[in-house]
Amino acid sequence: MNNFNYYNPCRIIFGKDTEIDVATHIKSFNVKKVLLHYGGSSIKKNGVYDRVIKSLKDGHISYVELGNVKPNPRLDLALEGIDICKKEGVDFILAVGGGSVIDSAKSIAAGTYHDDIWSYYMDNSKPIENALPIGVILTIPAAGSESSTGSVITNEASSFKRYINSEKLIPQFAIMNPEITYSMPKEQIVYGASDIIAHLMERYFTQTKNVDLSDRFLESAFKTMIRYTPIAIENPKCYTARSEIMWAGTLAHNGLLGMGRDEDWSSHNIEHELSGEYDIPHGMGLSIIFPAWMKYVYKDNVDKFAQFANRIFGIDYANEEKENQALEGIRQLELFYRSVGLPTRLSHENINTDRFEVMAKRVFEGRGDAIGSFKKLKANDIVKIYELSK
Amino acid sequence: MNNFNYYNPCRIIFGKDTEIDVATHIKSFNVKKVLLHYGGSSIKKNGVYDRVIKSLKDGHISYVELGNVKPNPRLDLALEGIDICKKEGVDFILAVGGGSVIDSAKSIAAGTYHDDIWSYYMDNSKPIENALPIGVILTIPAAGSESSTGSVITNEASSFKRYINSEKLIPQFAIMNPEITYSMPKEQIVYGASDIIAHLMERYFTQTKNVDLSDRFLESAFKTMIRYTPIAIENPKCYTARSEIMWAGTLAHNGLLGMGRDEDWSSHNIEHELSGEYDIPHGMGLSIIFPAWMKYVYKDNVDKFAQFANRIFGIDYANEEKENQALEGIRQLELFYRSVGLPTRLSHENINTDRFEVMAKRVFEGRGDAIGSFKKLKANDIVKIYELSK
Repeated sequence: MNNFNYYNPCRIIFGKDTEIDVATHIKSFNVKKVLLHYGGSSIKKNGVYDRVIKSLKDGHISYVELGNVKPNPRLDLALEGIDICKKEGVDFILAVGGGSVIDSAKSIAAGTYHDDIWSYYMDNSKPIENALPIGVILTIPAAGSESSTGSVITNEASSFKRYINSEKLIPQFAIMNPEITYSMPKEQIVYGASDIIAHLMERYFTQTKNVDLSDRFLESAFKTMIRYTPIAIENPKCYTARSEIMWAGTLAHNGLLGMGRDEDWSSHNIEHELSGEYDIPHGMGLSIIFPAWMKYVYKDNVDKFAQFANRIFGIDYANEEKENQALEGIRQLELFYRSVGLPTRLSHENINTDRFEVMAKRVFEGRGDAIGSFKKLKANDIVKIYELSK
Repeated sequence: MNNFNYYNPCRIIFGKDTEIDVATHIKSFNVKKVLLHYGGSSIKKNGVYDRVIKSLKDGHISYVELGNVKPNPRLDLALEGIDICKKEGVDFILAVGGGSVIDSAKSIAAGTYHDDIWSYYMDNSKPIENALPIGVILTIPAAGSESSTGSVITNEASSFKRYINSEKLIPQFAIMNPEITYSMPKEQIVYGASDIIAHLMERYFTQTKNVDLSDRFLESAFKTMIRYTPIAIENPKCYTARSEIMWAGTLAHNGLLGMGRDEDWSSHNIEHELSGEYDIPHGMGLSIIFPAWMKYVYKDNVDKFAQFANRIFGIDYANEEKENQALEGIRQLELFYRSVGLPTRLSHENINTDRFEVMAKRVFEGRGDAIGSFKKLKANDIVKIYELSK
């Protein structure tokens, strides 16, 4: 186990009707003016917007609104939000939505204190020193941004999709009512599930030895996702399925399950270029890229993949057949993806591209010449992974 | 899953040599004077005391000392600490030790702001509104107090052993270096393991339905304890075993694994009277009381006990034999306890007592007439559990 430093002061307020009291939680921060940040029409259709406005008004909390966050959130809107915060004296951001809205809110929160916020996304060696406090009402379990340190933003002008990370970006509170997720379309459920599973696997596949407890926690969350994703699709109003997925999504990415181990994140970086280039959902890109990455890297630690196959999919430990055991685990993962309607090849989404080398090169813009920790990958490795995903 | 509110802002600084930088962490709180609180001679023998003093002196941090905390920490010493804090203008407490030292520190931290702190222990309806900030250097993985809301204190005059709980009591940081635990005697390893396992079981055995993910997390930590406790006994300098146990001990009791589920805590309350009466180690009392409690209550939810037997001890699911499956799980737990040298009966420690009724009555002092949530227990139930533990 590696040395580590874990800190996550986000208050999780979880369960039925919890969003009704949002004003109470905001008030404990002595707030003058709130930026209410959200996406499209879904929160207006499902009643969440009205309940939030009622709570703010009943609580006599002054606010300005900025909606219209799109999936793969854009730098331009964040810059608009930063302007609003500065002009209006905003001292708290309430993000109502999924990962895109929260990531956009984090960009605004940091950008209010740092000039040229995009330069921090392009150069992660520049530290985020301060940010406005953020509260979240989560509507889509997926990105884990509700209690994470990270924000991912796309610069439309250059089509780069990049992240920043800082403890200063961890929201003060996250209100999570599983009932709000009842109205999510099926596609959003499965893309969200894919993102949550990817967050688990980016941590699970490590070369760090002797990390038994965090291995088991990661497997626990993985098994919960495999059990409840099909149930949520089949029965959208199953509170059990929705609550298990929502809680798993937060715990997959609040930092805890990666403590003491090297994390990888190659698949996320490789996928970001894909969804940056073709504007496909992040979760869809991940179910395409991850199996390809696994096939490319598993020989660097067959035992870890054999354990994965054994503990997640119940593939018997086979001492002289570990490679086949490992490959069977990858095959079972692909079967799971397809069983819930996720693509596992670019061709499933009719993406025929000759841009593998261009995308592989862009992964390294501002990042040196290798990514990943399970296996260090250079541009030519990434081209091969794209090839495996065709 | 129940609604819940989770908040744990304790920073965990985990790994080799981490205690050397304690002054840096204290300084981030703009501290004027520290109360250095500790127990007996062990931290002087193993070098921890010297390293802490060096760090404080190098960091020019002013401090006063209060040592001599005993297992089952006493109210009298806490009152002495409160006096010191008030007279000396202490604004930060550094607790160097295990659960007893940390619980004593919490009592002092709260007592500095509340008159008659013992009255809060005897009446948990009185809220703890404020407390001095606390930092911890953990030397014994067991109580989980390093990042928990709780403090357990014994009032020697009345021999009541009681707790308080408050978010205000969560330490600001916990420094955890598994190497410090190398010098623990074998007894401390197993009493600590027993306490950690009990913290898991108090949460695991619940009547709350649909708590799959937290069930699995609890099972994960349990399996980690079963695997690594014997290794730590066999090979005291095994870093892997020490680090897994230390991290499991914190996660067993930082609140996370109980979120969304009713917790029980009868066994702890029943045990507190036992160790309050006979001054035996808490972990020893727990390995005696827990199996008796399990045998007394399992029929109230045989399925939960069957799942426990299946997932923890690999007892095959047996649809028409669930009761035997459940009982086999309890038997396996007793076998585990005995395999690491823990007693499972009062007679193993030569405790022959006719004070069951007195102790059972004392459990309820200031607490109504029933405890527990898995099964509500009254005084006559508790007498029967003591009988089963003979």
